[in-house]
Amino acid sequence: MSAGTSLRQMREQKPLIHQITNYVVMNETANATLALGALPVMAHAIEEVEEMVGSASALVLNIGTLSAHWIEAMIVAGLAANNYGVPVVLDPVGAGATRLRTETAKRILGEIDVAVLRANPGEVAALVGATTEMRGVESIGAGANSPDLAHRAAQKFAVVASVTGPVDHVSDGERGAEIFNGHPMLATITGTGCIASAITGCFLAASRTYFDAAVEALIALGVAGEDAARDAKGPGSFHVNLYDALAALDPDTIDARARFA
Amino acid sequence: MSAGTSLRQMREQKPLIHQITNYVVMNETANATLALGALPVMAHAIEEVEEMVGSASALVLNIGTLSAHWIEAMIVAGLAANNYGVPVVLDPVGAGATRLRTETAKRILGEIDVAVLRANPGEVAALVGATTEMRGVESIGAGANSPDLAHRAAQKFAVVASVTGPVDHVSDGERGAEIFNGHPMLATITGTGCIASAITGCFLAASRTYFDAAVEALIALGVAGEDAARDAKGPGSFHVNLYDALAALDPDTIDARARFA
Amino acid sequence: MSAGTSLRQMREQKPLIHQITNYVVMNETANATLALGALPVMAHAIEEVEEMVGSASALVLNIGTLSAHWIEAMIVAGLAANNYGVPVVLDPVGAGATRLRTETAKRILGEIDVAVLRANPGEVAALVGATTEMRGVESIGAGANSPDLAHRAAQKFAVVASVTGPVDHVSDGERGAEIFNGHPMLATITGTGCIASAITGCFLAASRTYFDAAVEALIALGVAGEDAARDAKGPGSFHVNLYDALAALDPDTIDARARFA
Repeated sequence: MSAGTSLRQMREQKPLIHQITNYVVMNETANATLALGALPVMAHAIEEVEEMVGSASALVLNIGTLSAHWIEAMIVAGLAANNYGVPVVLDPVGAGATRLRTETAKRILGEIDVAVLRANPGEVAALVGATTEMRGVESIGAGANSPDLAHRAAQKFAVVASVTGPVDHVSDGERGAEIFNGHPMLATITGTGCIASAITGCFLAASRTYFDAAVEALIALGVAGEDAARDAKGPGSFHVNLYDALAALDPDTIDARARFA
Repeated sequence: MSAGTSLRQMREQKPLIHQITNYVVMNETANATLALGALPVMAHAIEEVEEMVGSASALVLNIGTLSAHWIEAMIVAGLAANNYGVPVVLDPVGAGATRLRTETAKRILGEIDVAVLRANPGEVAALVGATTEMRGVESIGAGANSPDLAHRAAQKFAVVASVTGPVDHVSDGERGAEIFNGHPMLATITGTGCIASAITGCFLAASRTYFDAAVEALIALGVAGEDAARDAKGPGSFHVNLYDALAALDPDTIDARARFA
Repeated sequence: MSAGTSLRQMREQKPLIHQITNYVVMNETANATLALGALPVMAHAIEEVEEMVGSASALVLNIGTLSAHWIEAMIVAGLAANNYGVPVVLDPVGAGATRLRTETAKRILGEIDVAVLRANPGEVAALVGATTEMRGVESIGAGANSPDLAHRAAQKFAVVASVTGPVDHVSDGERGAEIFNGHPMLATITGTGCIASAITGCFLAASRTYFDAAVEALIALGVAGEDAARDAKGPGSFHVNLYDALAALDPDTIDARARFA
């Protein structure tokens, strides 16, 4: 496990990360992908997703502003990714908030071989059948995240579960990791969860295992968040600083700054 | 009428603001909602809008990049909001610029019980049948806004009309208010009108009356705009500062800074 | 050829630039258009594009996140633009990356009278049948751009070809120009190609010829990029600075700063 080694390799290889994501954050996840050192491509037309994912090193599916056509495109792209051996990240934005979102996330998990499920505790709880409190797409309640929740999701869906919050929990169903990097300001702007999912896609193209990719991605975003908060005056300047910080992440020092167990 | 009291309550309760809005500003209105202190959720699929709006404290409908499916979803969401007693904001972006926009805005006003119509003078003039000059979705001509225009719209559509420009005019058909807060730089970036509508949704979840919500929202955005302009070097840095300023709005001092009559 | 003269005229007339563009950059191209001094409008519904383009001074078609409905709307808008004498810019984002994109770009070039084709070398190579290396929507390989490529595209499609890279090449099939303005940081954020296309639309509404518009637009964006890079700490702050720099472009000095041959 070395976020630095993976980051260095990613920047050398510039893997293409195909993202079928929501309207709110497309610009944000594209810019985060670029800032980190990979190449984003957004393509959702059912006529082209199979072909596009064939050139990609990872596929990120995000249901943040889903509709019928997009769901079908995600399924087609996901099946093609599985066929090509391209790893898939699922971000089940708002699972638990509406039936459409819960069912779509479960359908993708059922029909597609997902490498990493990256979500907040409320979404994961909804998917594994635990009780939770959601408000829209936000997970409410600080005590909601736990190693057990990630473990259950990993086992139930045969994925690496990457459950993010003030402390992040990653589990592959056997091993678990807690990541303490990060900053409360990450929660003050929209899309940092989606950015975490996009960055997980970037690391899937470079890390040794899916588990390593999930952990290294959260270390990278967490360290960048710490740097971005340093002279931020509020959510606007934090948002700007975050891209600067992702681009400035130093492969030589990031492992020394990682805080995880 | 106290923007400070409403803002304090909003930040304690973190109401969910369901927004069916345009592609151009989704990230902007979501981040403005968060910065102010409420929670945004964007959801437009006809299969989920009824369920989502049932969890929301306000619904914002914005026709800035409309198409047939989205119009139907807005109607379904609006009817559900009326049914649940969730107040609705309509932003009729570009009414007057094309028949589709004018007719869609009128259809929503006819079929949905709208709490606040937040628009620019040209859009409102098109809806009440007054003459106006539009260029695309922009209202041209400084003299276009007036207390009378807001009053006519409020009476014709039985809404609170919130008509924004260098000076803003709000009317509930009986009372009127003029808001002088704001800064010319608000007009140098896209989406500040849409942000005004989103913030109006936030205040609808916290203010005493719809009229108060409309006025307090424009005071809040205006004061934040004044703060954001202070060390802005142009529209890019103003845009960033605006989120910082919204987050920094102080419930204890905002009422003393309000300039309205 | 004077970027300053065209810029001054644009800011006086504030032409409306109708953009049917991709979800990733809509906010970015709208804000760049405003910052430069023109008015953007985004409208893609097939029911309104003919009417909207009738009020516009240029139409920008960008296939970055295309789907079937959007393609039809682009064709309808483009034919209406031709009918009204409104010049059309085509940005064939990702041509060469998927058949859908290559064929859609060729279809638009076949059915619509395009004034300026603004693209990267890989996209242009795919359209003229030259070999190239693409990764997603990015053109790979520094040596790919050349005056010859722009010349071939201009002749084949009877357009002004504006092929951008570290050095930009513009050709109308007879004359050619190379533009040396710009900065490597322009490649560190998503959407600068799309911004170049939007700005080309702005200059089409003000410049003497299509060829002049294409060259002047790249000078303007290049000079702004140079200014934006000056105190940028990374891609986030560069992005913000770029809007400030576009708004600060000085018609009196821009021609002295232009570097082209």
